[in-house]
Amino acid sequence: MSLYFITGNKNKLEEVKAILGGVEQLDIDLPEIQDLDAKNIIKAKLAEAMKHKKGELIVEDTSLYMECLNGLPGPFIKWFLKSIGNDGLARLADKLGNDKAEAKTIIGYVGREGNIHFFEGSIKGKIIAPKGETSFGWDPIFQPDGFDKSFAEMGKEEKNKVSMRRIALDELKGFLQDGGKG
Amino acid sequence: MSLYFITGNKNKLEEVKAILGGVEQLDIDLPEIQDLDAKNIIKAKLAEAMKHKKGELIVEDTSLYMECLNGLPGPFIKWFLKSIGNDGLARLADKLGNDKAEAKTIIGYVGREGNIHFFEGSIKGKIIAPKGETSFGWDPIFQPDGFDKSFAEMGKEEKNKVSMRRIALDELKGFLQDGGKG
Repeated sequence: MSLYFITGNKNKLEEVKAILGGVEQLDIDLPEIQDLDAKNIIKAKLAEAMKHKKGELIVEDTSLYMECLNGLPGPFIKWFLKSIGNDGLARLADKLGNDKAEAKTIIGYVGREGNIHFFEGSIKGKIIAPKGETSFGWDPIFQPDGFDKSFAEMGKEEKNKVSMRRIALDELKGFLQDGGKG
Repeated sequence: MSLYFITGNKNKLEEVKAILGGVEQLDIDLPEIQDLDAKNIIKAKLAEAMKHKKGELIVEDTSLYMECLNGLPGPFIKWFLKSIGNDGLARLADKLGNDKAEAKTIIGYVGREGNIHFFEGSIKGKIIAPKGETSFGWDPIFQPDGFDKSFAEMGKEEKNKVSMRRIALDELKGFLQDGGKG
């Protein structure tokens, strides 16, 4: 039986392969339900994915949570970027006078017995005016605590050291090495 | 064949019955996908509903679009209310220096031949500090143009005169009376 990572994102696939080894990509389009809790969105995706594919499945959600918006955008980050963009998000933090934020990855894994397990990784930081490459989502406006540059200004290696996705993947890896009872 | 309005909201049901007559309630829980365009959300709901029920079906979406957020919250209004509430929304408009907003209802109707038709009604207004009854969503912070009170401060009759839902329903009614080719 194979382990499938459901994603259309090549960068995420590479990061997952680098940590977990023999993972296969499953590029299917799953409906994304509305919810403030990323776990519920992941659950709905996995339930749908299980109709299409037998085997072990992984779905991940990486979201940006801003304190000035009481946790928004959270799982709605994609739509905030589409409508107000990084400039708009940075302006919100500035005008509301609170730049605290958290970048969080949640991985949902469903194993051979059909149970769902969650693994989380999070990094605290602050929202800044956009700096660096603008190619990857909200990377230009998130500056992790202890650094003086945005995610977008970091090299791949440097970023991996403070990656919320890496933390979550390491947890999953440990679980699987322990013979994951999923 | 019956006309079913898919909703769990008794107030909305009453309003629809008052205008369209013999409508039956269908209280099923449909997944709400993430999208900035309410029409896509309605389409996904109707597609799912058609698996459960034969007949003519109606789904509606009423959302608040704020100019200072380039159209957000839009169909995500429910989650903005849960996280930052009416106070938070009013504060955003204030801090961003733009109180313009639009309240919009979109009705999706699927007829006997399975085609989807949309009917829209919208009201322009502005975002104000919460005033009036707080029982119904964002009514306390929306003040329609030409009035000096919020939706929440209006009586039912007065509010019906400026109801975006009523405008959309009147359009649907006209369509059905013309023998709607859906």
